[in-house]
Amino acid sequence: MRAAVLVEPGVIEIQDRPIPAPAGGEVLVQVSAVGVCGSDAHYYRHGRVGSFVVDGPLVLGHEAAGTIVAVGDGVPFSRLGQRVSVEPQKPDPDSAETRSGRYNLCPHMRFYATPPVDGALCDYVTIGAAFAHPVPDTITDEAAALCEPLSVGIAAVRKAGVTGGSRVLIAGAGPIGIVVAQVARAYGATDIVVTDLDVSRRKRARDFGATAVVDPATDDLAGLRVDAFIDASGAPAAVMGGMSTVRPAGSVVLVGSGAETMTLPTQLIQNRELVVTGVFRYANTWPSAIALVERGLVDLDAMVTGRFPLEKTADALDSDRIPGSVKAVVAI
Amino acid sequence: MRAAVLVEPGVIEIQDRPIPAPAGGEVLVQVSAVGVCGSDAHYYRHGRVGSFVVDGPLVLGHEAAGTIVAVGDGVPFSRLGQRVSVEPQKPDPDSAETRSGRYNLCPHMRFYATPPVDGALCDYVTIGAAFAHPVPDTITDEAAALCEPLSVGIAAVRKAGVTGGSRVLIAGAGPIGIVVAQVARAYGATDIVVTDLDVSRRKRARDFGATAVVDPATDDLAGLRVDAFIDASGAPAAVMGGMSTVRPAGSVVLVGSGAETMTLPTQLIQNRELVVTGVFRYANTWPSAIALVERGLVDLDAMVTGRFPLEKTADALDSDRIPGSVKAVVAI
Amino acid sequence: MRAAVLVEPGVIEIQDRPIPAPAGGEVLVQVSAVGVCGSDAHYYRHGRVGSFVVDGPLVLGHEAAGTIVAVGDGVPFSRLGQRVSVEPQKPDPDSAETRSGRYNLCPHMRFYATPPVDGALCDYVTIGAAFAHPVPDTITDEAAALCEPLSVGIAAVRKAGVTGGSRVLIAGAGPIGIVVAQVARAYGATDIVVTDLDVSRRKRARDFGATAVVDPATDDLAGLRVDAFIDASGAPAAVMGGMSTVRPAGSVVLVGSGAETMTLPTQLIQNRELVVTGVFRYANTWPSAIALVERGLVDLDAMVTGRFPLEKTADALDSDRIPGSVKAVVAI
Amino acid sequence: MRAAVLVEPGVIEIQDRPIPAPAGGEVLVQVSAVGVCGSDAHYYRHGRVGSFVVDGPLVLGHEAAGTIVAVGDGVPFSRLGQRVSVEPQKPDPDSAETRSGRYNLCPHMRFYATPPVDGALCDYVTIGAAFAHPVPDTITDEAAALCEPLSVGIAAVRKAGVTGGSRVLIAGAGPIGIVVAQVARAYGATDIVVTDLDVSRRKRARDFGATAVVDPATDDLAGLRVDAFIDASGAPAAVMGGMSTVRPAGSVVLVGSGAETMTLPTQLIQNRELVVTGVFRYANTWPSAIALVERGLVDLDAMVTGRFPLEKTADALDSDRIPGSVKAVVAI
Repeated sequence: MRAAVLVEPGVIEIQDRPIPAPAGGEVLVQVSAVGVCGSDAHYYRHGRVGSFVVDGPLVLGHEAAGTIVAVGDGVPFSRLGQRVSVEPQKPDPDSAETRSGRYNLCPHMRFYATPPVDGALCDYVTIGAAFAHPVPDTITDEAAALCEPLSVGIAAVRKAGVTGGSRVLIAGAGPIGIVVAQVARAYGATDIVVTDLDVSRRKRARDFGATAVVDPATDDLAGLRVDAFIDASGAPAAVMGGMSTVRPAGSVVLVGSGAETMTLPTQLIQNRELVVTGVFRYANTWPSAIALVERGLVDLDAMVTGRFPLEKTADALDSDRIPGSVKAVVAI
Repeated sequence: MRAAVLVEPGVIEIQDRPIPAPAGGEVLVQVSAVGVCGSDAHYYRHGRVGSFVVDGPLVLGHEAAGTIVAVGDGVPFSRLGQRVSVEPQKPDPDSAETRSGRYNLCPHMRFYATPPVDGALCDYVTIGAAFAHPVPDTITDEAAALCEPLSVGIAAVRKAGVTGGSRVLIAGAGPIGIVVAQVARAYGATDIVVTDLDVSRRKRARDFGATAVVDPATDDLAGLRVDAFIDASGAPAAVMGGMSTVRPAGSVVLVGSGAETMTLPTQLIQNRELVVTGVFRYANTWPSAIALVERGLVDLDAMVTGRFPLEKTADALDSDRIPGSVKAVVAI
Repeated sequence: MRAAVLVEPGVIEIQDRPIPAPAGGEVLVQVSAVGVCGSDAHYYRHGRVGSFVVDGPLVLGHEAAGTIVAVGDGVPFSRLGQRVSVEPQKPDPDSAETRSGRYNLCPHMRFYATPPVDGALCDYVTIGAAFAHPVPDTITDEAAALCEPLSVGIAAVRKAGVTGGSRVLIAGAGPIGIVVAQVARAYGATDIVVTDLDVSRRKRARDFGATAVVDPATDDLAGLRVDAFIDASGAPAAVMGGMSTVRPAGSVVLVGSGAETMTLPTQLIQNRELVVTGVFRYANTWPSAIALVERGLVDLDAMVTGRFPLEKTADALDSDRIPGSVKAVVAI
Repeated sequence: MRAAVLVEPGVIEIQDRPIPAPAGGEVLVQVSAVGVCGSDAHYYRHGRVGSFVVDGPLVLGHEAAGTIVAVGDGVPFSRLGQRVSVEPQKPDPDSAETRSGRYNLCPHMRFYATPPVDGALCDYVTIGAAFAHPVPDTITDEAAALCEPLSVGIAAVRKAGVTGGSRVLIAGAGPIGIVVAQVARAYGATDIVVTDLDVSRRKRARDFGATAVVDPATDDLAGLRVDAFIDASGAPAAVMGGMSTVRPAGSVVLVGSGAETMTLPTQLIQNRELVVTGVFRYANTWPSAIALVERGLVDLDAMVTGRFPLEKTADALDSDRIPGSVKAVVAI
C-alpha cells in the first residue's frame, strides 16, 4: 500500500508498505479521507510536538474515515463493508484510567501519528473494532474524518459544562475554536463570544456559531461576564484575559497547545472558585459527534477549505498558511 | 383592582380588591398576561391538587408577566417601568434548602395560587425583586408569562442530564411534554421521541421538536433505547413502559402529576442502575429561559392557542377541553 | 482439582474437574478462601435468583481470594505468587458501558457463579489480570475474600453520596447492611441509623458502626431526617418507611434484592426531588476496599462467624440459618 | 462594650463601643471565644491582605463563638440563650450566587474583619439568625469558635473530592494544613501525605492525621501518586511540586494565600486533565463541622496552643511567631 511518510522534518515521501493485518478485536480500514491537524503540520515542520519527538519515519494523520475491509479474531463478519469514522486511539483495557472510563488518559495509549505509532495518511489502517464507528450514508467521507476534531470540541464543551442558556467565551478562531463554537451552539449556548486578532477569522467565526466577536487588540473584555471560557489559542495573554471574564464558580478549559507552563491568575481562581482544567483528546465522544452531524447541528463539510491527493500530502500540511484556510483533507 | 377569585369549585368571581403593597425587597407588578396551567384548572374543578386543598377564596394563576410599577424598601427605583417575567415563588432565605441553592424545596415556600397564597389572575401582584426577571422588548408579554412552564421544562431537562447528542423519550404531548421537547431540542438532543395516545397531539409534538412519535396503544417500544426518559403524563403505564427503554445508568425524571404512589420496576432500577427523580417546580432557571426565548431556541408564542380577557377566566380555565388547545393566556 | 458443584437445588457434590487454563490477559488463581453470599444460598435452595436460572451443574461462590500460580499471554511473570483478592467479573472491554467506566453494567458480562458461568468454590479459578487485586500481608485470606461484599457497600455508599457529616438510614442489619454501615462510618457519616426487626441483629449493627438502631415494629421514624437512605432489606415496607425520612434532594439507594416491582411514593419523589437509584455489583471499588481494610477503617475479619472446609460447602450455604451468623467462609 | 480595634498597622486599642442592635432576621451574640487567623495577623502587621486594605479603625477576628442574648424582628425568642458557633458572613440573599447555593461568592458579601466590616474581637456581634449555628454542650467554646477554620478544611476537602480510600497530598502543616489533614482523615482518606519544611510542624502533622510526612527540601516526590493535592502553603514551589504528583483526572485545590499570579504547569493540566480550583471561605459547611466535632472525628481543642484575654489581643495576633504555636484563642 501507499503511505505518506515523514522521513525528516519538512520531507514527506510516498512509500510502499505492506498492508497491516488486524489483530484480534481489530478491523482493517481502507482509508477514504484524512483531515490535516495543526499537530501534523507541527511534526512536519519541527519534528516534534512538546515532549513527543519523531526519531524515525512516521506516517502522520489521525483524522480518518474509511471502510472496513477485513476483521480480526472475534470481530463479526457483519462489520465488513461498513463505512466508519476512525477514533484513532488504542488504549490498554486494563489500566486504571481505561477502567474508569477515561481511556484517553491511559498511560499505555497508542495513538495514531504520535511517535512511534504510525497514523492514517496511507491506504489501510488497523483499529480496535469498537473504535471504528459506523456512519450513515448521509455523512460524507470528509465529515466522517472530521468527527475527530469535532470530538475535541465535544470534549471541551462537556468539560466546560456548556448547556442551554450558557454564555461562553472562546479564544482563537482557528479550526478548533470554530469547532468549539459550533458545538457550543449545538449544546444550546446563547452567548458565544469568539476572540481572534485576525479580522477574517473573526468574520468566519460568525458563520460557525459566534454570536459576537472581539478583537483583543482593541476591544475591552471588561464588561463581559461568561459561564465558561475555552481557550483554543494557547496564547498566555488570551488565557489571562479570558479568565478575567468568568463568573464565580465558572469554568476554564484549556484546549489550545501552548507552553509547558503559563502564568495564571491564582488569586482569581481562589476568589471566584474558578474550575480550571484541560482537554487531552477525548473519550466516549463519537456517538454524539455522529449524531450531531447527522442531525445537521454541526456542519463539518463547510470547514473543508482544501482537498489534496495523497501524493500532495506535503502541500496539505502546508495549507494552513493559505489565507482563509480552515481545514485541509487528503482524499485517499 | 380586579381579581378573578375561585370562590368554590367551578365558580370564578371577578372581585374588587385592594392593590397589595410591596414589602421590603419586593416589587409591585402590574400584570399583563397570565398563562393557565393544568393545576389551575384542577383547583377550579376539584378544589384541590393532591394534598393542597382550597379552603377559602383563592386567586389562581402562576404564569405571569407584567411591568414593575412600585418598589419596596431596599429595591432601587431604577427597576420602575421594567417589563418582567414573574418567578412566582417566595422562599425563606434562611432555610437549609434555600441556602443550598434549592429554594424550590424550601419548606416555608409561599407559592402563587397554592392555598392559601393568592396567584396572578388580577391586576397587581407583589414578588421579591430578584424573582421579577427583566425581559427584552423582543419577548412578548405572553412569552414572558410562559417562561414559567418553560422553567419546568428546563428543570426536567437539566435533571435528565440531556445534552448534545442525547436520546430522549418523553411521555405525554400536553403543554409540559411539548415544552420539554422544545428544551431538549435546544439543549442538543438528537433523538426526541414523544409518546401520546392522541394522534393530533403526536402530530403537534413534531412541530415542537419531536424527531419521532409513538402511539403507545399500537407501537412497540421494545427496540428503543434512550439516555433519558421524562414522564410528562403521570400515567403509570407510560412510566413503566418508558423506564424499560432507558440505557444502563440512564435517567428517569417524573414531571407529570400522578397518584401518590406508583408501581415501579425496582429490579430494573437496580440491574441498570437507573437514576430516578422528580421535578418540583424549578430554581435558577429564569435567566436561561429568557435567553433561550430571546435567541429563538424555544418558541413560546406558538404554544398559545387561546386568548381571554380577565372576565373570561372561567372560559380560559376550561379551554383545555377544546380540541387542539395547548395553552390559554389571560390578557389583563 | 476439586469443585463444589450445585447439581440440583439442595444438592452440592464435590467433583473432580480439570484445572482451567488462563486465557490471554488472565491469571490462574489458587483459591484460599471463599465467602458465602445470600445469592449463593438462594441458588442452592431455589435453583434461581430472579431471572437467572440454573439449568446445569454450577460452581457457586463469587467472594474469593487466593494466590496467582500461572499467567496467560501478555501478563508479566512478576505477578506469579501474588496474594490477590478476586473481583469476580469479566466484562467485554468493547461495550459502551465498559468504555464509559461502568463495566459492571456491561451487557456481555460474565460473572462468577451466575449461570452458566462457574464460580470460585473450587481449587483454581481464572480471572482477568486487572481483576486480581494484590493485597498486602496484613490482610487475611478471609478479609481478602470479603473485599467483594465490601465493594457492594462501597458502591452503595458512593451512590448515596455519603460523606463527612452525612446522616444515613440503613434498612436491614444482615451482612450487606452491616458492611454498608461500616463503609458509611469510614466515609465520615456522623449519624448512622440501622433498622431491623431482630433485636440481636440490631445489637450487632451497633458493633459495626450504627450510631442508633430502630425497631420498625415499634419505633416511629417520623422524627428522623436523613441525607440518604440505603435499603439492604428488599422489604417493601422498609423501603416506603425509609424513603419518608429522606430530606429534600436526598438520595435513596436500593441494594437489597427484592421483588421485580415495588410500590414507591412517587409524589414524595417529586415533591422532595429525591434521587432514587440501585446498585448492581460495583466498578472500580477494589483499590478503595483494600486501602480501607489495610488502614483498619473497615473490619472484615470480625464479620466471619463460620468457617468450613470445601467438603462442607452445603453446611456453609445453610449457615445463614444459624442464629447470630453473619458471614460464612469456605477455606480451600 | 469593649472592642479590640486595629487603629493602625501594629496598634490594637481596647475601645468602648456601643452594643450593636440586631437587625430584622439577625441575632445578637455575646462573644465567648475568638480564634486568631493568619489573615488577622496579616491585617495587624501590614494593614492589608491582597486587595483588601484597612483604611479606618477595624475590629479583627472572624472565628467566633458565643451565646444569643437578643433577637431581631422575625427571629423566634426560643433562640435566646443558645450557645452558637458564628458563621461570619452576611451575603445578599438576592444575588445570583446566593440563590445558587454559593453564597460565599456573593459579590455583595459583608464578611467579619474584612474592611470596612468589623469582626468579633469584642463583647457583642450581630449575625443572621441562620448563620448562628447552635452547638451542643459537649463542644467547648474554643472548638465552637474553631468551626470556622474547620469549615475552610471541609470546603477544601469537598472540592478535592476526598472520600473513602482517597490518597491526598497536603502542602503546608500550618493551622489550615492541619485542619485539612484532620478533615481528610474524617472523610476516609487512607493516604494523607503532608509536606512542610519545618520538622516540628511535620511531626505535628502526624498527630493530626498525616499517614506520612515529606520534607520537600530533601525528599523526592517523584514516586508519589495521589488523587488530590491541596495546597495550604501558598508557596509556588510547593504548588508546582504538588501538582506533579496528581493522577490523571485528579484534583488540585488552592487554599493557601499566595501571590496574585503563579506559574502553573499548564501542559500537565492538559495532558492529565487535572481539575484545578480554589477555596474562598465556605458555604453550607457548619452542620457538618459541628457533627464532625461532636462525634470526635475532628479534634479542634487539641489545636489550641495559646489562650489570651481580650486585653492581650496584640499578643494573640503575634503568637504565631512562637515556636510550636498552632492556634491562639482570645477568651472574651
